[in-house]
Parts: sequence; structure tokens; C-alpha cells
Amino acid sequence: MTSGGYRAVDLIGRKRDGGELDAEALRWLVDGYLARRVTEGQMAALLMAGVLNGFTDAEARALTDALRHSGETLDLSELDGPVIDKHSTGGVGDDTTLIVSPLLAAAGAQVVKLSGRGLGHTGGTLDKLESIPGFRVDLSPDELRAVAADTGCVVAAQSERLVPGDRAIYALRDVTGTVGSRALIASSVMSKKLAGGADTIVLDVKCGDGAFMTTPEDARALAELCVEIGVEAGRRCTALVTAMDQPLGRSVGNALAVAGCVEAMSAPPSGRLAELALDLACHGLALARGGHPDATREELTRLWRDGAALERLAAMVAAQGGDPSVCDRPREVLAAAPVTREVSARDGGVVAAVPARGIGELAAGLGAGRTHEDDEVDPAVGLELRVEIGDRIERGAPLAVVHARTDAAADRAADELRRLVRVGPDDVPAPPTVLGRRADPR
Amino acid sequence: MTSGGYRAVDLIGRKRDGGELDAEALRWLVDGYLARRVTEGQMAALLMAGVLNGFTDAEARALTDALRHSGETLDLSELDGPVIDKHSTGGVGDDTTLIVSPLLAAAGAQVVKLSGRGLGHTGGTLDKLESIPGFRVDLSPDELRAVAADTGCVVAAQSERLVPGDRAIYALRDVTGTVGSRALIASSVMSKKLAGGADTIVLDVKCGDGAFMTTPEDARALAELCVEIGVEAGRRCTALVTAMDQPLGRSVGNALAVAGCVEAMSAPPSGRLAELALDLACHGLALARGGHPDATREELTRLWRDGAALERLAAMVAAQGGDPSVCDRPREVLAAAPVTREVSARDGGVVAAVPARGIGELAAGLGAGRTHEDDEVDPAVGLELRVEIGDRIERGAPLAVVHARTDAAADRAADELRRLVRVGPDDVPAPPTVLGRRADPR
Repeated sequence: MTSGGYRAVDLIGRKRDGGELDAEALRWLVDGYLARRVTEGQMAALLMAGVLNGFTDAEARALTDALRHSGETLDLSELDGPVIDKHSTGGVGDDTTLIVSPLLAAAGAQVVKLSGRGLGHTGGTLDKLESIPGFRVDLSPDELRAVAADTGCVVAAQSERLVPGDRAIYALRDVTGTVGSRALIASSVMSKKLAGGADTIVLDVKCGDGAFMTTPEDARALAELCVEIGVEAGRRCTALVTAMDQPLGRSVGNALAVAGCVEAMSAPPSGRLAELALDLACHGLALARGGHPDATREELTRLWRDGAALERLAAMVAAQGGDPSVCDRPREVLAAAPVTREVSARDGGVVAAVPARGIGELAAGLGAGRTHEDDEVDPAVGLELRVEIGDRIERGAPLAVVHARTDAAADRAADELRRLVRVGPDDVPAPPTVLGRRADPR
Repeated sequence: MTSGGYRAVDLIGRKRDGGELDAEALRWLVDGYLARRVTEGQMAALLMAGVLNGFTDAEARALTDALRHSGETLDLSELDGPVIDKHSTGGVGDDTTLIVSPLLAAAGAQVVKLSGRGLGHTGGTLDKLESIPGFRVDLSPDELRAVAADTGCVVAAQSERLVPGDRAIYALRDVTGTVGSRALIASSVMSKKLAGGADTIVLDVKCGDGAFMTTPEDARALAELCVEIGVEAGRRCTALVTAMDQPLGRSVGNALAVAGCVEAMSAPPSGRLAELALDLACHGLALARGGHPDATREELTRLWRDGAALERLAAMVAAQGGDPSVCDRPREVLAAAPVTREVSARDGGVVAAVPARGIGELAAGLGAGRTHEDDEVDPAVGLELRVEIGDRIERGAPLAVVHARTDAAADRAADELRRLVRVGPDDVPAPPTVLGRRADPR
């Protein structure tokens, strides 16, 4: 319990009594937790004290540093040109990575994206990509650099040797009710980004009932803290605050999400998912090159429309062992669920709510997500929404198509979906997707 | 993580967000912690949320019940007459158990006292008794009842099968900075008392820098909650709130504490330790028999003065395997430290402070106490104070005698003691020992 002049119980007591922990103490706690010198109970008590009394921004910075240096870091210096990493704080139908990465690669940037698995109601990029037959996400650092150098983009699993401190503490936060803290979220996100080695970081901070941050104020504060930490560490960093009250993309699931992205990239950019993906790409490219995001929009729109972006996606899929024909005939290549069911509206009117969290949990309940870290996901199941907030619909119009493993599961999901999607008599304006930006101050 | 309709993370979240947990949920958590269905991190997060947001009195009652029923309970119904248990919340030089138990036995009551080990700066009754050669504290329920029936009093270790929930949670609280909560202290104390089976409970709630409760208000509130819980469970219960700013007895250590008690019982009651012991015994006997505490004072004083109480102590020592001649020649029978050193005052004046916590830590540092649960204690070391708050002393007068294992340890202790004991020019009144009473309302 005693080492390096510290006792865990004293540091916990300081935080419990409203005090602040310095960088050395936080690093001692993180390293001690990995070395089992600080117990699970002690770390959990510290986290709860911090959640209730608040961690300061200085503590968030120190914690980021402690987590970042808890394991290996990825060296990307041998890659040519700017290396961009794009990160979302997690949401439902949130598939921008699958579009932004090849789009930026088409523009000459390198995108190295280390991703996590889905947990709870949020989907995971790795789970989605693994629905492509043959696709490998567990790449060694050498493989990762090789794919990036070759195709301009790579999306892979974060190595267990990268930020093990975050991995351990995140798993503990998840089961101890200590997820929702700005400083803890910022340090978790930024430690991974800084250890990941990219010089340019584009953050998508989600806000709404399907996100960690439910108010725009909290989301903006989180975005600001993350950008500050990134800039202080010498990276180019920017953040968009975006809405997560309804799912971003209309396809919620794994294979369905991949199909949705391929189909979006096969047409001119349109719809909330495509527009946000384009926006994020504009910000990433402008940040990497210097200049205003709008200056890159025409170039990126052209790369999208002429198929260069989709071509890069096919190249990445092939380089990571997957079947690239998924980019031509996604519905044929990807697994399909045995049962599909169209769910129709019981009343006409205007769609007032498509609650992201509820929809995410519904998809997870069908088998698309996991409750525990070691659950298996079903690639084929999920749902395809046909409506979004502000749409005027007739009675009997399709709300969604459910893709399920069994008839019973499809019936339950259809009932739940009708309960979730609120349709009312009054006009509701389509809400904005981008709620704010926090640009790199340089 | 899921069982009985509950998820630990949801219950933690409720407490984190300021809500209240009902009896069923608290029992599920306690049982689940023992069954490892609730993890150490989850219990620690819950405890910290409760420490910071407060547990209600209803939660304290429910928690007491859950802990009490987490293991076996002791059946004392076959014992004749009232069975009294006396409990102190823990302090320094706090040896009243060694006096109160035989004194009440001499008056015809049965005293069954289940005790714990010392931890941190507070001494443990078991450690003190074990300094008597041969004394056994690990008695089976049958042995315990036999000693009580035979001699009228028994002081033994709490069985591991009694309130295992409290045992497990107390160990966790100790290392996670979650000790200091009224509800947690009350439920820990009262679950043990209720499982211990006595029908009459006398509590000594300590207050001051050497106690969990540092203000009289907090100590009174703790006393009130404990008595309420005891009375609701159908026991006779009373509490004194007593000062713990300076050590209660002047002998701090294990063998030294026993010698101090024997010497106190060999003379008419005088001094703070003897007076509080007499006071506690008066309250216990009055509560057991009915009537006012003052009505029992004359009888108990007589039993003290004529040696009947000391005789009972000798009988109990013998019945528990110890050498009863400790009650005649304590300094010969008990282990002595190789080094003794008198510490004299550098300045004359009035003693303003003899800080209990500091003195307790000093004695623990000499080897009399333990930092970890499995540390061994040294029976012989400790210190004998020669002064208390309010004493007027000359320069060079003895402050204390240090009993140490080595010269170096004695030197360090002497320096520390001179630093701790504050002597000033101004008169300081001798502070009261009893600060308040919380009687059984019946």
C-alpha cells in the first residue's frame, strides 16, 4: 500500500475532501493500479470521489499524461505527409469513420485510426468492419504502418500494449458508475489519441440522449478540454460538437452500417451522416494542411462524387484481408439476417423523436451490440430507419426495417420501435447536426 | 453482474445521484459482495458515493440488518440474568473494557464482550489481553458461554462466522478512505452488537482528534443513531459521548495497559479512566436492572474497593487460560521492554495538549499497534504518561516513560513525545470526560 512516499488511502482522502492531486500522485495511482499496488476498490473509490467532487482541468491533463505513458506508444514518423486520426465520443448510427478515413486518404492524407469495440447502446467501428468477410482488425504496428503507407488509411484495434492504464480504468469505470466525468472522458480519449501517434486529431464530441454528454454546455466543455490537451501535447487538434439525440446514420447494426456507408459513398453526399462525414473530413484536411475547412470542401466533394473515396475504402478492405467487392455489391457480400420486417407507422403526422439511446439498445437487444466486453456480436441483425426528426409521414408509412435472427425477436423489436419513434400532430423542425466547433487556437 | 432484478451499477448510480437505497437493495449488495457477485470496485464506489452524498438513517438501519444477517448470530439465551455488552468506538488508552466487564460481573450481571484487534492509532482489547501469558481470545461459542456462566464475564475475538459482511466491508473501508460516515460506523457497530446476542448494550462513543468523530455534534448524532437501531431491534441500549482529545488511560500499549488497569482496580476508583469505567458500569447495570445509573454507583464502588471486581478479572483470566497472578503482581508476570526512558519537560507551565492520535501513532510506531491487519504487535512496548491536560508542571518534570525495544526507538519516541505534548504559560482547565448521554428512550 505504501511506495514512493504515497499511500493510496491518503490520496483518495485528499480527493474525497475536495483537494487536487498533482501529476506525480496521479501517475503513481495509474501505474500502481496496473501493478496491483493500488487495489480495484481504491481506484473505484478515487474515481467516485472525483466524479462527485470534480476533477480539475489540471488533473485531467496530468491523468492523460499518466495514461498515455502507461504502455507503448505508436511511432508513425516514417509515414509520409500529415497523419490524421479522427475520433468520436460514441453514438448510434455513427459511421463517419468508414467514410472519413478513405475520403481523407483520397485527398493524400494518411489516416491511422485505432478503434474500440462497441459497448452498451453504442456501436463499434471494429464490429462493423469485421462484418466484412475476411477483414482483420488485429494488426501489428508494422502491418498498420504498411497498410497506411500503401492505401493511405487503416482502421485497426488498439493494441493491448497501448494505454493499458486507460483500458483497465475504463473497464472499472464502466461497472462502477463512474463513466460520466468530463475529466475522465477527456483523459481516456486523449491518452489514446496521443499514444496513437497521429499529428492531426479531429474529434467528434457527441451530445444528446445517446451520448455521455447530454447538454451542449457539457459537450462544449469536453471538446474544449480535449483540444487544449491535444494542443498542449504539440498536436494539431480540432473538435466538432454534434447532435446525438437521434441516430446519425439510418442503418444501425454491423453489416447494415457497412452497407449504408458504401451506398452513401456511391452517391453524391446527402443526408446527415454523409454531411457530417464531409464536414469532419474538411476540418481534418484543413487542419493538416493549414487553411479554412471550406477551402477543402470542393476537392473532397469531387473525390467523393468521382468514386476516389470508395476506391480507397476498397483498397483498405483488401489490404486488411477483407473482400473488396463489398464496395460494389455490399448486400451480396455481407451477411443477411434470416428475418426482415417492415415496421409501419400507426398514426400519420410529424416525427418528433427517434431516441438514439433507445434505438441503440434495441439494436443491441437484437444481437448487434454487447452488454459485456466478451459478448459476441451478430453481424447481420439491426435496423434500417426510414424516418428522422421533422419528417412528415402518412399513417402506415414505413418507420424502419428490422433485421432479426428470429420472428419473435423481430416482433419484439417492431413493437419497441413503434413505442420509441414518436409521431405527433405539430411541425417539428429538422434539428441541426453540428452544434459547435472548437478549433485549434493556432 | 445481474441477479435478483438488480444491477450493481444501477444501484451505485442511484446513490451517486443522491437517491436512497431500500432494504432489499442493500441486502442484495451486502450478500452480493460476500458472494463476489458485486465486485470490490463496485462496493468501494458505492461506499464513496454514500460517504460524499450521505446515507440516510433508514439506510443505516437497513444496512445494519443486512450486515447482522450476513452470517451466524450468537445465542446467549441460556445464560442466567441480563447479558451486557459494552462497546467503545475506539480510542487511545481506552481500557475501560478490562475494568467494566469484571466490575459488572461482580454485581451479578453477565458480560459477553466480542472484541476486535487494534488498527492504526487505536489499541485493541484483544491485543492487550493477549499480553497476559497463556490468555486465549479465540473461543468457540460453547467455550464463550461456559466462561460467561462460570465467571460472569468473557472477552473474546469475534468469530469469523459472525457478521462476515461487516468484516469484509470494514476491511475495504479501511483502505479506501470511506471509514468516516455516521451511517457506516453505526451499522458496523450495531450489526456486531446485535449479532453478539447481548440484551443490554452500553456504547461509549468517542469524540475528538483521536476518534472517528471529531465534533460533539457528530458524536452525538452517531450515539443517537446507534441507540435508535439497538432499541428498534428490541435491545436495551444506551450511549455516553466521551472525550478522546487526550488518551483516556495513562498507559498506552498492551502489557502496560493491562498493568495500568490492574493497578487502577487495586486502589479506590480515581482518575479519568477509572471514573469513566465506573460511569459506564453504572449505566450498564441500571439499564439491565431498570432504574437510575446513580442508584448503582455505591454498590459498584464498594465492589471495586473491596477487591471483588479484581477477583472477577483474575477468574476470567484463569478461565481463558491466562496466568491469574497478573492481578497480584502485574509487572512481574507481564513482558517488560528492554529499554525504558523517562522523558522530561523542556519548559515549565501548564499542559495544554496531549494529542490522542499522535500518542497512539507513537505507541504503534514503537510496535504496540499495527498498520496492517496481519502485523504482529509487541506486547511490551508503549508509554506511560505522567501528565494530562490542565496539569501545572515544572521544567524537567517527567512527561512520560517510554518503553521501547531499542535505544534508537526510545530516542525517537522521546523526541516525538516532547513535540506532541504542548506546555504553555496559560492556565488550562482539565476538560470533562463525559460530554453527553443518549439514554434508551423507554
